Amino acid sequence: MVVTLSIDIAHQGLHNITRQINDVVSKSKQKEGICHILITHTSASLTIQENADPSAKHDLEQWLNRLVPENDPLYTHTLEGADDMPAHIKAMLTSTTLSIPIINHRLALGVWQGIYLWEHRRMRATRKLVIYTGT
Amino acid sequence: MVVTLSIDIAHQGLHNITRQINDVVSKSKQKEGICHILITHTSASLTIQENADPSAKHDLEQWLNRLVPENDPLYTHTLEGADDMPAHIKAMLTSTTLSIPIINHRLALGVWQGIYLWEHRRMRATRKLVIYTGT
Amino acid sequence: MVVTLSIDIAHQGLHNITRQINDVVSKSKQKEGICHILITHTSASLTIQENADPSAKHDLEQWLNRLVPENDPLYTHTLEGADDMPAHIKAMLTSTTLSIPIINHRLALGVWQGIYLWEHRRMRATRKLVIYTGT
Repeated sequence: MVVTLSIDIAHQGLHNITRQINDVVSKSKQKEGICHILITHTSASLTIQENADPSAKHDLEQWLNRLVPENDPLYTHTLEGADDMPAHIKAMLTSTTLSIPIINHRLALGVWQGIYLWEHRRMRATRKLVIYTGT
Repeated sequence: MVVTLSIDIAHQGLHNITRQINDVVSKSKQKEGICHILITHTSASLTIQENADPSAKHDLEQWLNRLVPENDPLYTHTLEGADDMPAHIKAMLTSTTLSIPIINHRLALGVWQGIYLWEHRRMRATRKLVIYTGT
Repeated sequence: MVVTLSIDIAHQGLHNITRQINDVVSKSKQKEGICHILITHTSASLTIQENADPSAKHDLEQWLNRLVPENDPLYTHTLEGADDMPAHIKAMLTSTTLSIPIINHRLALGVWQGIYLWEHRRMRATRKLVIYTGT
């Protein structure tokens, strides 16, 4: 089953989307199988990360912002704003597709794992995911 | 269906292979499903990135070259040339496998997304992809 | 078929798990298909890398340790030890899921490719993988 999910994102950073993905898995009636997720953008990405302590999320965001700052003189792709080229680089360093096993109608994630949509741009946006559940 | 694709690469950098992968999807007769791609090398890799403005591609290449320069005194693995150890590190920071949903016989990529083979070595090479389309 | 694998890890660094994954593929009786691997942790990760010269493995570990050092004043998530926040960042820069084609009952990896579990913490640990083989 293939489902397209549109998610409204209010600001830059990590947004936990585990619940929305588990809802798709639940509706797919797939008891055992795989859930594939594609984010159809190049300035936002996916990552599986710690879902408990907000300080881990905060540090991941700050660390990546420092590694890939805005206004780096290296950038020539600057027409779409100061946050655009860093967004592409951050997407390249993280994931655009994830494939997660389904066991008993649920994502087989670890206890401390959550799926995050990582918005790399500063503006409000609607981001699209294509989710395919199968065997 | 499993297909092995050999791609001749003329130089270091990002090479758009979306057309070749869509050709495999088209021949597979898979209307809806998943296309899995494995690059069978450790000094070249895969990424999904902006397919429009060549300046984005240029900046991604320059940024990664600066983060992972040749002749870093840290390297002990130097026998295969100055571009070899940087190539392994760049492959590690990007992707070796991708899984992309198929809708209506086409990869369900976003409008601005292309699949790139990222050659990290400077020499001319033939790179092998294993592509599996299924449900 | 879904299998959960527990692997005892003695120390920080890259641990070759190709043999264990091929054993699961072999037992699955899947002649052609896909092997999906999820590591259910956020302070250890997966990567496909060179399996031959130990100096490549050594340099990958050293390079990532230098990029993501312990005791960075940026970190606020420090309660679980000096190696914990670097572990999350290293996991974010590498892979949590991999999907590898199966041909003739074997992973279709390149000659020089091995699958590695990358332990990012310094303590001894048991790490869990969920492996799903299908079509």
